Amino acid sequence: MKRVGVLTGGGDAPGLNAVIRAVVKTALDVYGCEVIGYRNGYDGFLDPQGAMPLGYDSVRGILPRGGTILGTANRGNPFARKVMVDGQEKIVDASDDVVRAIEAQKLDALIVIGGDGTLRIALELFRKGVPVVGVPKTIDNDIGGTDVTFGFDTALGTATDAIDKLHTTAESHQRVMVLELMGRDAGFIALHSGVAGGADVILIPEIPFRYESVVKKILRRKERGRPFSIVAVSEGAKPVDGEQVFSRPGDAMYVPRLGGIAQKVGEHIERETGMETRVTVLGHLQRGGMPSPFDRWLATRYGSAAVRVAAQGWFGRMVGLDSARVKDVPLEEALAVPKRVNVHGDGVLTARSVGVSFGDE
Amino acid sequence: MKRVGVLTGGGDAPGLNAVIRAVVKTALDVYGCEVIGYRNGYDGFLDPQGAMPLGYDSVRGILPRGGTILGTANRGNPFARKVMVDGQEKIVDASDDVVRAIEAQKLDALIVIGGDGTLRIALELFRKGVPVVGVPKTIDNDIGGTDVTFGFDTALGTATDAIDKLHTTAESHQRVMVLELMGRDAGFIALHSGVAGGADVILIPEIPFRYESVVKKILRRKERGRPFSIVAVSEGAKPVDGEQVFSRPGDAMYVPRLGGIAQKVGEHIERETGMETRVTVLGHLQRGGMPSPFDRWLATRYGSAAVRVAAQGWFGRMVGLDSARVKDVPLEEALAVPKRVNVHGDGVLTARSVGVSFGDE
Amino acid sequence: MKRVGVLTGGGDAPGLNAVIRAVVKTALDVYGCEVIGYRNGYDGFLDPQGAMPLGYDSVRGILPRGGTILGTANRGNPFARKVMVDGQEKIVDASDDVVRAIEAQKLDALIVIGGDGTLRIALELFRKGVPVVGVPKTIDNDIGGTDVTFGFDTALGTATDAIDKLHTTAESHQRVMVLELMGRDAGFIALHSGVAGGADVILIPEIPFRYESVVKKILRRKERGRPFSIVAVSEGAKPVDGEQVFSRPGDAMYVPRLGGIAQKVGEHIERETGMETRVTVLGHLQRGGMPSPFDRWLATRYGSAAVRVAAQGWFGRMVGLDSARVKDVPLEEALAVPKRVNVHGDGVLTARSVGVSFGDE
Amino acid sequence: MKRVGVLTGGGDAPGLNAVIRAVVKTALDVYGCEVIGYRNGYDGFLDPQGAMPLGYDSVRGILPRGGTILGTANRGNPFARKVMVDGQEKIVDASDDVVRAIEAQKLDALIVIGGDGTLRIALELFRKGVPVVGVPKTIDNDIGGTDVTFGFDTALGTATDAIDKLHTTAESHQRVMVLELMGRDAGFIALHSGVAGGADVILIPEIPFRYESVVKKILRRKERGRPFSIVAVSEGAKPVDGEQVFSRPGDAMYVPRLGGIAQKVGEHIERETGMETRVTVLGHLQRGGMPSPFDRWLATRYGSAAVRVAAQGWFGRMVGLDSARVKDVPLEEALAVPKRVNVHGDGVLTARSVGVSFGDE
Repeated sequence: MKRVGVLTGGGDAPGLNAVIRAVVKTALDVYGCEVIGYRNGYDGFLDPQGAMPLGYDSVRGILPRGGTILGTANRGNPFARKVMVDGQEKIVDASDDVVRAIEAQKLDALIVIGGDGTLRIALELFRKGVPVVGVPKTIDNDIGGTDVTFGFDTALGTATDAIDKLHTTAESHQRVMVLELMGRDAGFIALHSGVAGGADVILIPEIPFRYESVVKKILRRKERGRPFSIVAVSEGAKPVDGEQVFSRPGDAMYVPRLGGIAQKVGEHIERETGMETRVTVLGHLQRGGMPSPFDRWLATRYGSAAVRVAAQGWFGRMVGLDSARVKDVPLEEALAVPKRVNVHGDGVLTARSVGVSFGDE
Repeated sequence: MKRVGVLTGGGDAPGLNAVIRAVVKTALDVYGCEVIGYRNGYDGFLDPQGAMPLGYDSVRGILPRGGTILGTANRGNPFARKVMVDGQEKIVDASDDVVRAIEAQKLDALIVIGGDGTLRIALELFRKGVPVVGVPKTIDNDIGGTDVTFGFDTALGTATDAIDKLHTTAESHQRVMVLELMGRDAGFIALHSGVAGGADVILIPEIPFRYESVVKKILRRKERGRPFSIVAVSEGAKPVDGEQVFSRPGDAMYVPRLGGIAQKVGEHIERETGMETRVTVLGHLQRGGMPSPFDRWLATRYGSAAVRVAAQGWFGRMVGLDSARVKDVPLEEALAVPKRVNVHGDGVLTARSVGVSFGDE
Repeated sequence: MKRVGVLTGGGDAPGLNAVIRAVVKTALDVYGCEVIGYRNGYDGFLDPQGAMPLGYDSVRGILPRGGTILGTANRGNPFARKVMVDGQEKIVDASDDVVRAIEAQKLDALIVIGGDGTLRIALELFRKGVPVVGVPKTIDNDIGGTDVTFGFDTALGTATDAIDKLHTTAESHQRVMVLELMGRDAGFIALHSGVAGGADVILIPEIPFRYESVVKKILRRKERGRPFSIVAVSEGAKPVDGEQVFSRPGDAMYVPRLGGIAQKVGEHIERETGMETRVTVLGHLQRGGMPSPFDRWLATRYGSAAVRVAAQGWFGRMVGLDSARVKDVPLEEALAVPKRVNVHGDGVLTARSVGVSFGDE
Repeated sequence: MKRVGVLTGGGDAPGLNAVIRAVVKTALDVYGCEVIGYRNGYDGFLDPQGAMPLGYDSVRGILPRGGTILGTANRGNPFARKVMVDGQEKIVDASDDVVRAIEAQKLDALIVIGGDGTLRIALELFRKGVPVVGVPKTIDNDIGGTDVTFGFDTALGTATDAIDKLHTTAESHQRVMVLELMGRDAGFIALHSGVAGGADVILIPEIPFRYESVVKKILRRKERGRPFSIVAVSEGAKPVDGEQVFSRPGDAMYVPRLGGIAQKVGEHIERETGMETRVTVLGHLQRGGMPSPFDRWLATRYGSAAVRVAAQGWFGRMVGLDSARVKDVPLEEALAVPKRVNVHGDGVLTARSVGVSFGDE
């Protein structure tokens, strides 16, 4: 493996830069490869200025920074190109052009960091012969094959902080506060931040809700001397007998706009309970900020692992994290072997790959 | 199950209150049990004022608070009682007294939240017939049978924040900054925060180190135009050919004191490289603070699961989290089934157990 | 002075609890007074359950908590009571009833913590003979007679954090991000957080703006290789030749709703520059959260000073902070006398008043 | 004014980069000057690589970063040079060499950002004809001529966060927690963070303390059912009848080392009260981290103001902030004129100077 490419696609997520840094350091230090970054997703292959060599100085200081130094402002599906035919716009299959452009880069491996859309294109490229390794990226945590991805923990921090802040106002003013969170098809952000922040009602796409249930819960709290409530709502939550109503259009980017489900829920509550109700749409803030320590750790492991997978020639694969479920074990067994860092595990390997010394060389 | 006891033992950890709250809410709402808290660990059974009934109001507002409302100021092993015999202090086995005191409480289950020491006593109690369920607590993350425990993520946040802060001083002043972190036998805090914070050298108990390796790494960085370095050291790190030198005595509580391994490492570096070197011992701060969203989520799941395990009559067991390893999967498989909240999984069950409405009742 | 009353009115602000705590501790420790809190602003005088005696235990642990333990859910102006006359709603002057209700409480001083509206009522009460001392509270920082009030610094933290988070998305996606912040008549939050966060355009009520100026600035940045911008907008910002368009109705509480000035600005920018533009309305979050250290410090000083002012019998007055302007002084003068804590100043006095020992008693 | 120099000296402080950025943007945009930065304080004049031209790209993204892009690793007083005379080290006056080196740079103004030591040298340079403007920098807040300097608010945040964290452990474990904070001669950090964090005892250099007073306070709390206490200690605190005992040597940099006053206080408390007592030395962490919004705002104002002062030819001066004292004013007066942003004040001027558009051009 002599030449590795890397790109980031889709909406940004805290930790993208940490993946890029780990890819560069691992490829340079461990495999002695050259690394090329492509700007703005797959567009980087079609843009004459789209390729940038990445060295140690390119990734210096980016570990704790949100966003991506490679940019992700791509213009949609690179395989579907709009052309004018007889004065009419037509969409033609441009996939062969893209594959040719990638082949011209003479990459031994292409590491694609992206969400569902970006990775589906990666899979198609793999089928057309491109040596692809995927790294999953999704704030919503809705990608299969992995327990969690980087960015989710940071978004959870932003969402939980918002719930904590709404709590004091709810209580001081005796109000119902409704907070709309990201999660079009998967309700993880609302579920985890709702439980962590002590929300009273959590509405998620996976569990269709009844308005009267929500109202009943809020009134029951009031009767018990809690005349305030917090309602956490995934943007994709839907009533049992209704449609999804989004506060953003159907693209991959988040455009908060009242008029979505949270507002509907808020209006319903105010009407039926007579309690002052306020709606907040958290929006873009959930994508931004300094990645949390967990996200920096996970993103670094992903970047480093992706290079190792590529070096093995295992293409068409994605790195992921093994599932985390609560279980119960015999106390005796749990206490028999105290836990230690696995010195041969991927954590220590990752640290070494990004240049950490353990003082044992 | 009519009457459930709960206690917290050992050093405090962010998330203890979240476990207590989940135990109380789950026991009251789901099982209609009475809940009794015992003050200051097992001492609560011997203290006439040691038992306190726990209701909704007892746990109101404690979810995001560090520490434990039950206290943990116990006087050591309750089984080993000091008595004066013929003017001499002797230690006698008091375990039967403790068991009798517990039996007098007529508990159907006792939920013990604690670290290695506290859980070992729980196991002995179980063997003597006490219906115990354990919940693991350790900042160091050194308990077996679980991938991670609550408190670790918050400690990681404090440790990574410290590394981030030392970075700017290291660079502005061209210094080596050495930071001693918790981890007597397990180096997880230093490893994870070191990687997340971009440390250059990480020394942990599991990987014995050589002083000359550390020095070489720091000098190599200087030659490459990086005349500063960050060294993260577990308190239990040890040189290949030396002993462990602790900055705290051997008890369960953390007593930072220079003179430990970090200071030795710092002095060695300054002497051998001639570079200004500064040592910081983070100490107690790692145990404190508001639990992170992840820790509140995990602690709530543990508390709720412990009550369910107790209700099944599965005693002598401990709740835990299934392991999280980086793996790789075929892209096709990963993309085949997008991930959704498991509406029958322990997360949703936990949320319901602590009183969350999903609007579907 | 034997009996002191205290109430909080208007929208909540981080630091209210710190003021209440300082009032209680200073009144109890320094003056040996009884302290009575009134619930939900002036309504507390009319509500049979409205008065609550405040002791050490009432204020324990509230220093770092947002919100107010006294509540602020008042029903508007207590002087204007709605009555039904001949089947028609009429508003009658109820001020004498309120004054009588207050007189019935036999207070030697009434400390009123509130914003413009609450303090105007306090002034009227003073004119009718009530021994009032005011403590200014305003997130917007729009009250005269003081340089700054508690709550503003915390709101600034929330606003600046939001700008920091939008920055990474703006840059990664090459977008214009518009953020609407609180500030109906005064633009302090947008000005300070905008400068602290590196915003490119700041629109405030005090400086009427031209849409074409905004567009020009954004396009000039794009030409210079910065194809993204951050625009911070006070909710009360207005165009030179237009009206104010609020995203909230005219009451004292904040109700974020798109359709305000930020959205108008965002739509204008997108139309005229062709650049992707996103609008976020931060809303309620600006009122919530744990007060910053500065706000806890200032709120404690205010609470303590208010009791001292009351003890002097200086009624009809408000505590405030002396103005903070940037100036320049001769270097020689600046270096002549190093600064030290004024051991007779209000800071040390405040600390003693809330029970701090300096070890010199 | 055609050519402006800027340097940073002494220990680093959050906000240095924000000052540099404001100096560069104001000098370039408002005055059309060239700006030269000097590396590592005054050493930059003597080092052939010490001068670096500063443009827009040099200061991009540095506003929220701690540390200083110019470095501050100077080798002490540049006027006192060590030379070997007859085999013996002697210190000779090198001030004329330094002045000549500065003159060779042909600067119209030199902006010096530093603490007491750095500014005293600046004053000497001014007396020798160098056109100096000073910007005060001190974490301790001990420089005269200004109410506060940037860096102090961020340090306060770190210190208060530490107190908040110690609180939960103190209470759960029924301990006395002693925290040593910066402040060799001035106790501002301990006073402000102690009050903001609810410390029970605060020991500062300005108020000599008695050990028995401290012990009495802690025992009184225990009697009242508060068997735990927090003690905040400035490193320079001293007993009435004792000497200062530092945990760092006498240089300008902070070297935490137990054995200072905090440890003495802790040992005394444990011995006299029999209560478990723990000591933490916060050390370097107080200098690091992302500057708070207030510090970014103040640092930006200072940088911009310093260039304006230079442009007026007002040399030998320092910028500063006018004093902030708690006062009381008549309510009527306070309410008469609501506060608005002063559109001609230094805040708006600063914003414009760093390139902010208010949309009114």
